[in-house]
Amino acid sequence: MLILLRSDSSQADLDRVIQRVSDLGYRPLPIPGHQRSAVAVLGNDGRVDPSRLLALPGVEDVIHLSKPYRMVAREWRPEPTVVRLPGGLSVGGEELLVIAGPCSVESEEQIRQTALAVRAAGAAALRAGAFKPRTSPYAFQGLGHEGLRLLEAVRRETGLLLVTEAMDEEGLEAVAEVADVVQIGARNMQNFALLKRAGRAGKPILLKRGISASITDLLMSAEYVLAEGNPSVILCERGIRGVDSSARTLMDLSAIPAVKDISHLPIIADPSHGTGRRALVRPMARAAVGAGADGLLVEVHVRPDEALSDGVQSLYPEQFELLMLEARRIAEVIGRRVAMPVAAVA
Amino acid sequence: MLILLRSDSSQADLDRVIQRVSDLGYRPLPIPGHQRSAVAVLGNDGRVDPSRLLALPGVEDVIHLSKPYRMVAREWRPEPTVVRLPGGLSVGGEELLVIAGPCSVESEEQIRQTALAVRAAGAAALRAGAFKPRTSPYAFQGLGHEGLRLLEAVRRETGLLLVTEAMDEEGLEAVAEVADVVQIGARNMQNFALLKRAGRAGKPILLKRGISASITDLLMSAEYVLAEGNPSVILCERGIRGVDSSARTLMDLSAIPAVKDISHLPIIADPSHGTGRRALVRPMARAAVGAGADGLLVEVHVRPDEALSDGVQSLYPEQFELLMLEARRIAEVIGRRVAMPVAAVA
Amino acid sequence: MLILLRSDSSQADLDRVIQRVSDLGYRPLPIPGHQRSAVAVLGNDGRVDPSRLLALPGVEDVIHLSKPYRMVAREWRPEPTVVRLPGGLSVGGEELLVIAGPCSVESEEQIRQTALAVRAAGAAALRAGAFKPRTSPYAFQGLGHEGLRLLEAVRRETGLLLVTEAMDEEGLEAVAEVADVVQIGARNMQNFALLKRAGRAGKPILLKRGISASITDLLMSAEYVLAEGNPSVILCERGIRGVDSSARTLMDLSAIPAVKDISHLPIIADPSHGTGRRALVRPMARAAVGAGADGLLVEVHVRPDEALSDGVQSLYPEQFELLMLEARRIAEVIGRRVAMPVAAVA
Amino acid sequence: MLILLRSDSSQADLDRVIQRVSDLGYRPLPIPGHQRSAVAVLGNDGRVDPSRLLALPGVEDVIHLSKPYRMVAREWRPEPTVVRLPGGLSVGGEELLVIAGPCSVESEEQIRQTALAVRAAGAAALRAGAFKPRTSPYAFQGLGHEGLRLLEAVRRETGLLLVTEAMDEEGLEAVAEVADVVQIGARNMQNFALLKRAGRAGKPILLKRGISASITDLLMSAEYVLAEGNPSVILCERGIRGVDSSARTLMDLSAIPAVKDISHLPIIADPSHGTGRRALVRPMARAAVGAGADGLLVEVHVRPDEALSDGVQSLYPEQFELLMLEARRIAEVIGRRVAMPVAAVA
Repeated sequence: MLILLRSDSSQADLDRVIQRVSDLGYRPLPIPGHQRSAVAVLGNDGRVDPSRLLALPGVEDVIHLSKPYRMVAREWRPEPTVVRLPGGLSVGGEELLVIAGPCSVESEEQIRQTALAVRAAGAAALRAGAFKPRTSPYAFQGLGHEGLRLLEAVRRETGLLLVTEAMDEEGLEAVAEVADVVQIGARNMQNFALLKRAGRAGKPILLKRGISASITDLLMSAEYVLAEGNPSVILCERGIRGVDSSARTLMDLSAIPAVKDISHLPIIADPSHGTGRRALVRPMARAAVGAGADGLLVEVHVRPDEALSDGVQSLYPEQFELLMLEARRIAEVIGRRVAMPVAAVA
Repeated sequence: MLILLRSDSSQADLDRVIQRVSDLGYRPLPIPGHQRSAVAVLGNDGRVDPSRLLALPGVEDVIHLSKPYRMVAREWRPEPTVVRLPGGLSVGGEELLVIAGPCSVESEEQIRQTALAVRAAGAAALRAGAFKPRTSPYAFQGLGHEGLRLLEAVRRETGLLLVTEAMDEEGLEAVAEVADVVQIGARNMQNFALLKRAGRAGKPILLKRGISASITDLLMSAEYVLAEGNPSVILCERGIRGVDSSARTLMDLSAIPAVKDISHLPIIADPSHGTGRRALVRPMARAAVGAGADGLLVEVHVRPDEALSDGVQSLYPEQFELLMLEARRIAEVIGRRVAMPVAAVA
Repeated sequence: MLILLRSDSSQADLDRVIQRVSDLGYRPLPIPGHQRSAVAVLGNDGRVDPSRLLALPGVEDVIHLSKPYRMVAREWRPEPTVVRLPGGLSVGGEELLVIAGPCSVESEEQIRQTALAVRAAGAAALRAGAFKPRTSPYAFQGLGHEGLRLLEAVRRETGLLLVTEAMDEEGLEAVAEVADVVQIGARNMQNFALLKRAGRAGKPILLKRGISASITDLLMSAEYVLAEGNPSVILCERGIRGVDSSARTLMDLSAIPAVKDISHLPIIADPSHGTGRRALVRPMARAAVGAGADGLLVEVHVRPDEALSDGVQSLYPEQFELLMLEARRIAEVIGRRVAMPVAAVA
Repeated sequence: MLILLRSDSSQADLDRVIQRVSDLGYRPLPIPGHQRSAVAVLGNDGRVDPSRLLALPGVEDVIHLSKPYRMVAREWRPEPTVVRLPGGLSVGGEELLVIAGPCSVESEEQIRQTALAVRAAGAAALRAGAFKPRTSPYAFQGLGHEGLRLLEAVRRETGLLLVTEAMDEEGLEAVAEVADVVQIGARNMQNFALLKRAGRAGKPILLKRGISASITDLLMSAEYVLAEGNPSVILCERGIRGVDSSARTLMDLSAIPAVKDISHLPIIADPSHGTGRRALVRPMARAAVGAGADGLLVEVHVRPDEALSDGVQSLYPEQFELLMLEARRIAEVIGRRVAMPVAAVA
């Protein structure tokens, strides 16, 4: 940590900073500057709260030389985390996991047909929401526990892994009993109470990036889960608020290699929410694989034009098939492969 | 609602849209266009889910002519909502409510001294966190229930109203028992489970705008609270993510007149989080009053340089006194006045 | 165009809007609404200035049903524009054009060696700046006319096409005499005087997206060039201001399929400025090809650590070779191929 | 300057950084760190190009301890710059300058009537565009030289100072002959060729903040003007791209005290472009004065609903009168006053 003084700060200000650093138990190293002085804090293990220093008179800024996160950083664990899943599947290793399905579980027929379709195209996991966070209180909020029951039935039939979202602490317990991976949605990325529970869920967590979260914010939220004892976190880039007025979000694919550079956690891409428009999903799925994503999360619906939510960005099954063919070939170019679905247990 | 067709859409696409609108129970009005056709949806009460239409072939976009919210809109209720508080205080009427206090309750001494200082300067309400949402799991997380107990004691002594944050559903019950106003923080603005509980809390809610939330997002979140039966919502502008790299957030003061133009709910301003730097708080508090805010939320600490959180943006008591003097005079210019604190009951 | 009235507008307001639309020479179609009325403007050829209507009392908003641009739109010209370049090369057809080179021409030796290196790896065009727009007036501003002379010499030796930037109107003439493609940089994307000159330059224009420009802004700027008579515009996505504090810009790859959906103009990607960090360039170059870019613009330098500008994001020649190998293979997956450099004329 | 090494950097990387710093003529001070090492660069006068260091192996980031600008900084000149104008007026001192007028000069009648109206309300300067940068090539582009002639006539009659925009280098000469203050618009904020000419214009420059420019970008652009020898720069906050979809821009008023904290240059506020909607202009003008702006730039039109541009955000003269009354009273609260117009020379 480096404490930067204002150019009009006094010697007394500097002395006070040096004293405070010592009081906090660290070693101050003054750095004389052309315009201003600075004080480096040596021996800092990353836990100094900068506000104790920022609030001192004459201090302009505190610059972190260490990252604010620890357990999620490559510096803490150099080798990549491979999140292990049932059936020998995993995320973060050589294989890419493709997760597909409708936005919401709507009916037995709809979820069963969509599951069969995405499995036929090669997806290894099914994602569909039973509990839905909706901007409007008047929009369809999901089938709830009934939705979880339908998902379980589909898993028995298809062998697809289940990924589904938990929106609150109570729901998280119900979801964690059923799901193979528990999703924390973008709007809850900084719901710290929920993150702490996720850290004790006993299941891998799929953590979606918030709609305007920085990469540091995303990693700090993952740190909450790891700090509670759950090392199995899969990050997910899903688009941030963009500069265009329309429905289109802005898919920040460069976050994928950027995250991999600083963290050992796997990261997948959601080109459906990342673009918000069906026509953009396939190109951006290809792009995500090219950028090095560890998997894809793709919305597919047997009848998108009748979907109760997100139909506009859901692929038709035959579009998803093409996407899978291209994803496999691009994965090969960079020395990876797309995971095959496992057989149903029954 | 207006359904806009692509310029390369076919007559069959148009017919399908018209049919779907009829199927949903509304009346379609085709609008021939120079480049493209459109279909207006008449008789729509604002509940049509656009995704049912967006996903149809040939549809380019769906444009909402009605607002997505209802109960929070001026169209629903033209006169301003005045949220009534104990001691004859209120928010949204002629008087401005100034809420002040430290970021967190740290100790009996700290909260008591700060409360006395802000009351002496003229604040009518005390805000301090007992439960703190922190980006880092390693940062000070608040005193919890002990903090609530200290706040109650201070209210007995000073007569200041209490505003404090609830971070999760359990905490909300404890907070609602003690607080005069329950704060929902920026990071939980779209925690819909928490918003629903807030709608049944029986106490006024202070809803802070999320760090990149649009005004529509903010109003939709308020709608969740109203839809559950709680009409007493106070909105709060607190700064959004800006374009500057530094700690400074971007305080969107034009949101204040913009919200007042479309909603009857009161809105206050938080220049402390809105700027993130002590030197900017007073100018922006003046600006907020000038812009028409219904109140201020200001961080004040008896010893900011020893604060466990947010010291860098907390005012010294004597700075807060100056702020109050200026706020009173600017309020007068626009025909309003700053509420006086009420006497302690004891 | 649709004129949306406020819900509290009067019949007189509505009548005035209808009258104004008639006065402007168009046909008004009133649309009665649940909450509010609207008036569609029929017969509008896209040239109505909305401010004439927005300023009327009772008007809430004007919604464009037509695009604000014309000649750049697919609706104006459905088939893709293929920009023809010397040596049988082109942009926008089946082949991808890879343009590479250092940020600036620094010396004869530097530009010659870098040109030979990128040609050996398979680039067909060389980009290097002679005139450099720099945020700081104290930074290296380019070699100017001497730089252009060095570029010409390198073209004679290598056969590489030349792409270089014009910063002002005078410079544009000098650049247009030498370059095969004239670049308009991100900071000048809305320098309309320069755009008009570019429309009369007689050379293809590479128009880079501004640092926070929307897609509509970008297309409107291209419209300026086309409106002056130059149909040969190549768009370039180069990253916009992101949410992360660091040097990293945010590369908006979804702009590529989004632009292709609405415009016939070719669009290439610049993963060097788009990421700002060498380690991210190769993954994002692969991603750009996967997303459907018509070409790449990549910064390469024989000795990046001695570059006078942009060294941090410039590839070493051997990294660029790997990039080219991957780009070729991913292009194949989507049925395209990377253009080969042409032979030197000498 | 501080060079931050990656945590996985080697001793050789560190040695190379130390050597490079010495080679550049500065003194390296190694700072051992818990996670990583850093090297401070002592004796740096602010001109080191960071890319020479960033591109070295093992370097993660370069942190500027000095500002990238010099002449615009308070550190260079502690006392505020007061830009002197004809008639004893000025910007940056105790008095606030209010500049008002229509977006464009449209006709002799329109500009004359509007000028008389704003003068009657107390504005001391008239702003109206003769050369208009428009996003669309098909929109009204201004009356050009004829517009300048009309402005001159109005000044003779009213004594109002003239502020008008120059869009390109040629135009700048014509404008500088006529105007008392030459405006550089938001879209040209990084048109460095134009900025250099502005530095030699012999007239004060009103530099508007770009639509997504950071404060550092704005100050760097001002530095271009000062570096060419023109110290008379007035900055102008005019709103940046916001998070809301609608026409509303996001007026960043906290930029005003933030700029004053680091620069000696005066800064005024443009609540018309800053909000884009007439109803928000008055509240935000009050807010701007409260925030400490050195002046206001307000669009006023005698018949806003017939304006050829920006009518939607132009005030009616009687609204502007109210704005002036409030501005005067709020200026008083903070110990300032609004400048009175000077008498016509004739």
